Amino acid sequence: MRTMNTILTTQCDDDVGLIAKITGLCHQHNLNITRNNEFVDKDAQRFFMRTELSGVISDDFLPSLAELLPDGAELALHSSEKTKVVLLATKEAHCLGGVLLKQFEKALNIEVLAVIANYADLAPLAAGFGVPFHVVSHEGLSRAEHDQKVGDLIASYQPDIIGLAKYMRILSPEFVARFEGKIINIHHSFLPAFIGAKPYHQAFERGVKIIGATAHFVNNELDEGPIILQDVTHVSHADTAEMMAKMGKDVEKTVFCKALQLASEHKLFINGNRTVVFA
Amino acid sequence: MRTMNTILTTQCDDDVGLIAKITGLCHQHNLNITRNNEFVDKDAQRFFMRTELSGVISDDFLPSLAELLPDGAELALHSSEKTKVVLLATKEAHCLGGVLLKQFEKALNIEVLAVIANYADLAPLAAGFGVPFHVVSHEGLSRAEHDQKVGDLIASYQPDIIGLAKYMRILSPEFVARFEGKIINIHHSFLPAFIGAKPYHQAFERGVKIIGATAHFVNNELDEGPIILQDVTHVSHADTAEMMAKMGKDVEKTVFCKALQLASEHKLFINGNRTVVFA
Amino acid sequence: MRTMNTILTTQCDDDVGLIAKITGLCHQHNLNITRNNEFVDKDAQRFFMRTELSGVISDDFLPSLAELLPDGAELALHSSEKTKVVLLATKEAHCLGGVLLKQFEKALNIEVLAVIANYADLAPLAAGFGVPFHVVSHEGLSRAEHDQKVGDLIASYQPDIIGLAKYMRILSPEFVARFEGKIINIHHSFLPAFIGAKPYHQAFERGVKIIGATAHFVNNELDEGPIILQDVTHVSHADTAEMMAKMGKDVEKTVFCKALQLASEHKLFINGNRTVVFA
Amino acid sequence: MRTMNTILTTQCDDDVGLIAKITGLCHQHNLNITRNNEFVDKDAQRFFMRTELSGVISDDFLPSLAELLPDGAELALHSSEKTKVVLLATKEAHCLGGVLLKQFEKALNIEVLAVIANYADLAPLAAGFGVPFHVVSHEGLSRAEHDQKVGDLIASYQPDIIGLAKYMRILSPEFVARFEGKIINIHHSFLPAFIGAKPYHQAFERGVKIIGATAHFVNNELDEGPIILQDVTHVSHADTAEMMAKMGKDVEKTVFCKALQLASEHKLFINGNRTVVFA
Repeated sequence: MRTMNTILTTQCDDDVGLIAKITGLCHQHNLNITRNNEFVDKDAQRFFMRTELSGVISDDFLPSLAELLPDGAELALHSSEKTKVVLLATKEAHCLGGVLLKQFEKALNIEVLAVIANYADLAPLAAGFGVPFHVVSHEGLSRAEHDQKVGDLIASYQPDIIGLAKYMRILSPEFVARFEGKIINIHHSFLPAFIGAKPYHQAFERGVKIIGATAHFVNNELDEGPIILQDVTHVSHADTAEMMAKMGKDVEKTVFCKALQLASEHKLFINGNRTVVFA
Repeated sequence: MRTMNTILTTQCDDDVGLIAKITGLCHQHNLNITRNNEFVDKDAQRFFMRTELSGVISDDFLPSLAELLPDGAELALHSSEKTKVVLLATKEAHCLGGVLLKQFEKALNIEVLAVIANYADLAPLAAGFGVPFHVVSHEGLSRAEHDQKVGDLIASYQPDIIGLAKYMRILSPEFVARFEGKIINIHHSFLPAFIGAKPYHQAFERGVKIIGATAHFVNNELDEGPIILQDVTHVSHADTAEMMAKMGKDVEKTVFCKALQLASEHKLFINGNRTVVFA
Repeated sequence: MRTMNTILTTQCDDDVGLIAKITGLCHQHNLNITRNNEFVDKDAQRFFMRTELSGVISDDFLPSLAELLPDGAELALHSSEKTKVVLLATKEAHCLGGVLLKQFEKALNIEVLAVIANYADLAPLAAGFGVPFHVVSHEGLSRAEHDQKVGDLIASYQPDIIGLAKYMRILSPEFVARFEGKIINIHHSFLPAFIGAKPYHQAFERGVKIIGATAHFVNNELDEGPIILQDVTHVSHADTAEMMAKMGKDVEKTVFCKALQLASEHKLFINGNRTVVFA
Repeated sequence: MRTMNTILTTQCDDDVGLIAKITGLCHQHNLNITRNNEFVDKDAQRFFMRTELSGVISDDFLPSLAELLPDGAELALHSSEKTKVVLLATKEAHCLGGVLLKQFEKALNIEVLAVIANYADLAPLAAGFGVPFHVVSHEGLSRAEHDQKVGDLIASYQPDIIGLAKYMRILSPEFVARFEGKIINIHHSFLPAFIGAKPYHQAFERGVKIIGATAHFVNNELDEGPIILQDVTHVSHADTAEMMAKMGKDVEKTVFCKALQLASEHKLFINGNRTVVFA
């Protein structure tokens, strides 16, 4: 039996009366709906709903709900416990530090179980916040071997979300498949512009007046997963590529932290190559 | 009998099962909910919901719904017809022109029935967009007399919304009461800062780095009605009070147009001295 | 002899002491510098300066200045007279109307001499603001013939700037060369993303969370000229491609008007495929 | 003798030819100006300039410059050394942590010499970043005594800037006078709105749609010093006062870090109760 302040997430094929069925069952179970968001993707005929409930949830609630909904409905109940996160990093501190600081401030309902990096540079940062830090060097390993090793270490923590905090490694399809729908990356450009290497130098060369960052779920297309969140900052002719990179890091940090927050609040749904975000 | 694409707005005291009751009745009536927003003000124990429906709505839908809900529930069905607006203005063109241009672009689902001003300066602007323009001078009239005259003229158009497009007159309590909940004003500052006259000069003197504008419903407290929308723009030491005023006008125009858009989409609810805005 | 409130723009190869030389000559001529901006592109070794002067400028000021500066320096004095603009349009009203309204408000120091369009749809909008409107249909004409005809009509007005207010025609290299450095376009996407047709549909399909618009000088590379200004707005999963297009139009209007304002204030310099913008 | 990459800051009464005099002397001394900003406050007849110089600066440069300028000119040369900062804090981590993290990332050209707090709560945060942390409790001390003790400790570090990172103590006039022009505070509201206690609760009650934060120099008027920087974030009816406070902390962190960055880059000038900020 689950107790108060639970979030129900529902995703299924669209049908008439879905809201009535779901909210009706909540009413029968004496569950009070304190906040509700729903969205129907009309092209894909797909229904998404996030419902905040207060009240005692009996064990037969979810099975009863499944019976009312179309076959294949994805239902989940989320308690108010912290979302468990493992962060992967390389050498850059800003995204990793941003999340660890927010955890320290109690501004995010997450628990960073561990940091895994392919270099040791950021060990002091993790140590400062009392978070376990593992170096898994890629030296002398094939991509498959390294991904296997990192993946096994991640799996040992059983995280809900894997955050790529500027992890500068290309992931193998096997790794992505192993943690499907759980990997959130921060991309150092305003996708789909400036895909690939050195995006700030590309942006500088093109003479753009805005740079940005993109948080997205990772799938097997590099830089192509479902976008969660984007933000931008204005730049001028006086900003060099190096200054743009520095300004861009602030946007990356903000966007990455916010994406993890949305994940921890169960506000993110993957919808094909797009997302539904109940912000 | 009403037809497709209707918006149902509901406001009532909070109670358990309200969403289930409302959506259940929609389901019984074969109405498909294409978009739904709800909010509960827990302090005020007040429930707000906006529901986009497709399907044929029978004449007994609303009475049936009223029976299901707590006494005093405010229910309304809105067709996709244009929201009827009368605009009041004085001499400044930006807010009036902003709305008329957007109507011309078909970017707003509103119909400006008429413009009423206490000076003739803006007659050519209204004429250019083919909108009736009336001058009701305040010269030689008491405030009560002028408000009565303007009010009678407004009333003859039976508008849904009265937009104060930089109408530089203080309204009498009688006027406000006559059109209660229907008057939207644009205030040339970021309320509650710089209430009163010459807000941009006040802002300049204080050395602020951001200026803004506020759209709000008008009640009997000057500059104090429920806030609908606010936006800002950054200013610097190099901007004079006059330049701030010019920059501020852009924000005013944007915010005023957006507030009228929200009204025309039935996304605004007054909740005491606050608003619920389903943006 | 030129009188008070003049703007001097200087662009030349970089050299030591340029600011001292220019401001020294101003001092000798009893010209007071009320505002000054300069920028050196270190890679290109190029110097840019914009100087607001008050005082009486004698006829030998500019020749004297040219002697002090490196060969090939581009110097110009701009009075506070209005910048002369010809606008080109097709069927969409928002950018054209945005500029005409701002001219009416006296918010832009420009004079729109004429509007030229390849369809007649926007004639009433121009007429409402009392601006000459010419239809030059492309029907039955080759691109070269049409561009010649439009170009001759533009040339008859001798404008300082040609604004493409959603002019949905690809320009021939000859046309672009004829008005080199004078053509400002508004592009309906956040360049360099979504180049080409139907950018809002492309954006929707990719599931982006931000859309934007770009004002740029036109050169012979389609969608590739020096960028002047960009801005964005946030979108969500609930926004269809049509809604994005509508939201995008607001950004286009704002960015286009602001780019013309910067041009009218002589704050824009072309620097290869980039710009210097003294905002 | 000072070497390359120096910043010259000048503030004095306005006079004709000031830029020519300053840049002319730089030219004589073979100093290359790589970036220059100036501003004249016409009302106050006050001149401000920030000049980035490359080249070797001889010891007689500054005295020679002083002779050229009006009496009482405030001149300073700043090397590219890190700006020395002491941070004061109480119990909230976000602003303190924000600065320490940015220092760790090498994103700010500052050196935090020490953190002084009236409680011990944040000691682990400072320790994690290897920064000295002192508790100076106010228990049992008068305000004057406590300020004396804190002031003496600050003075022992000889900082350039004192950052109040959510230091929840009212400062005595003596303390403010002792460190005049060096104290930067972050205020948890969009000044001048919601001065005083519980600003987010005030903002919630008023139903505002935007909240913000303000970085300002501290003078003897509480919440009234010269404003350096402000920023905002949008809120909705669904955000409680607690959620607003949480969202506001992000803005506070960003604005505070940026204000320290501007200080470290010598881009801030106090101009009466206003600031000049060469951003």
